[in-house]
Amino acid sequence: MIEFHFDFLSPYGYFASRFVESLAEKHGRQLDWRPMLLGVSVMKVMGLKPLTATPLKGDYVRLDVARTARRLGLGIGRDLNKPPPSSLVPARALCWVKKNRPQASAGLVHSVYAAMWREGKDLNAPTDLTGLALPPDLPVDELVGAAASTEAAELLRQEVARSLGEGVFGSPTFVVDGEPFWGFDRMAHVDEWLSERR
Amino acid sequence: MIEFHFDFLSPYGYFASRFVESLAEKHGRQLDWRPMLLGVSVMKVMGLKPLTATPLKGDYVRLDVARTARRLGLGIGRDLNKPPPSSLVPARALCWVKKNRPQASAGLVHSVYAAMWREGKDLNAPTDLTGLALPPDLPVDELVGAAASTEAAELLRQEVARSLGEGVFGSPTFVVDGEPFWGFDRMAHVDEWLSERR
Repeated sequence: MIEFHFDFLSPYGYFASRFVESLAEKHGRQLDWRPMLLGVSVMKVMGLKPLTATPLKGDYVRLDVARTARRLGLGIGRDLNKPPPSSLVPARALCWVKKNRPQASAGLVHSVYAAMWREGKDLNAPTDLTGLALPPDLPVDELVGAAASTEAAELLRQEVARSLGEGVFGSPTFVVDGEPFWGFDRMAHVDEWLSERR
Repeated sequence: MIEFHFDFLSPYGYFASRFVESLAEKHGRQLDWRPMLLGVSVMKVMGLKPLTATPLKGDYVRLDVARTARRLGLGIGRDLNKPPPSSLVPARALCWVKKNRPQASAGLVHSVYAAMWREGKDLNAPTDLTGLALPPDLPVDELVGAAASTEAAELLRQEVARSLGEGVFGSPTFVVDGEPFWGFDRMAHVDEWLSERR
């Protein structure tokens, strides 16, 4: 198993989401999509400011995100000077889908990330999910209803508490057999680590 | 020119210091050793806590530093659970050496990093520098006197203000033709960037 922890508001999570399936496949591992909320880990638990609101670091991160996207050939359709989008609604939706339509999880992740980062859309309300390109086995009405449900909100609360309990704080974080790797730039190390354990 | 910005208290700066000369040589670039103080950039300007005192992140960084050192085959002779060492005195010494004995700069950097991170020594006072393995053209008495001088303190103040003015906040940071790259894990990108500009 590779646990892939990410926040939809994190562009480095977006980058990693494009490569994590082939990494898992290469090493014959299952993949667990683990939505998290940086607003909880970074601000409430760690007591830090959001990256983009931190003097000096905010400017650098905007530059690095744009440069990394160019390097990967991925378009960013979002104004990086705007505040990051809210990820609460899609994270709730994903928690519900993982439990009730697990086979649609990967498709939902890619669809949300493409909408938020490639196309620059905001997904602030459950009804904003209607524009997503969804897997065929995930009807859009069902998803909108799920995202607005108390079940989804409770599932995300549990998920956030669980990942904090496991020490996960940043997006993306990969956990392999209990070993954590934080950062998109650590994917090559995860690959190495997995190769050595075969 | 490659500007190499680093704080002696930063283990990632130590790792990078071991490879930055060969990177510069590979691309036919001069190297500028630029000491900085994370205590000023991170705490005063960015308003953040030290990495190791940040919940969750502190534990992860200790794990990542130990793992990265193993991966590189570099020993860490310092207890990573102790607070980071003070870098004020060696940073002042380096500023003085850069101005007055520039050809000894690289040797001093390697010697300080080896003492602090490989051997786990604290260099809190100018007299602590007497144990360093110094380049032959840098007499130890001269260095100890320099580290205690008001000239060195003033040079470091100017240096810290200059790097903050250039937007540098983390250690290590590489600046190539005005393009900043933050993090030891970005050295491969610096290499790519330099290759493309040849």
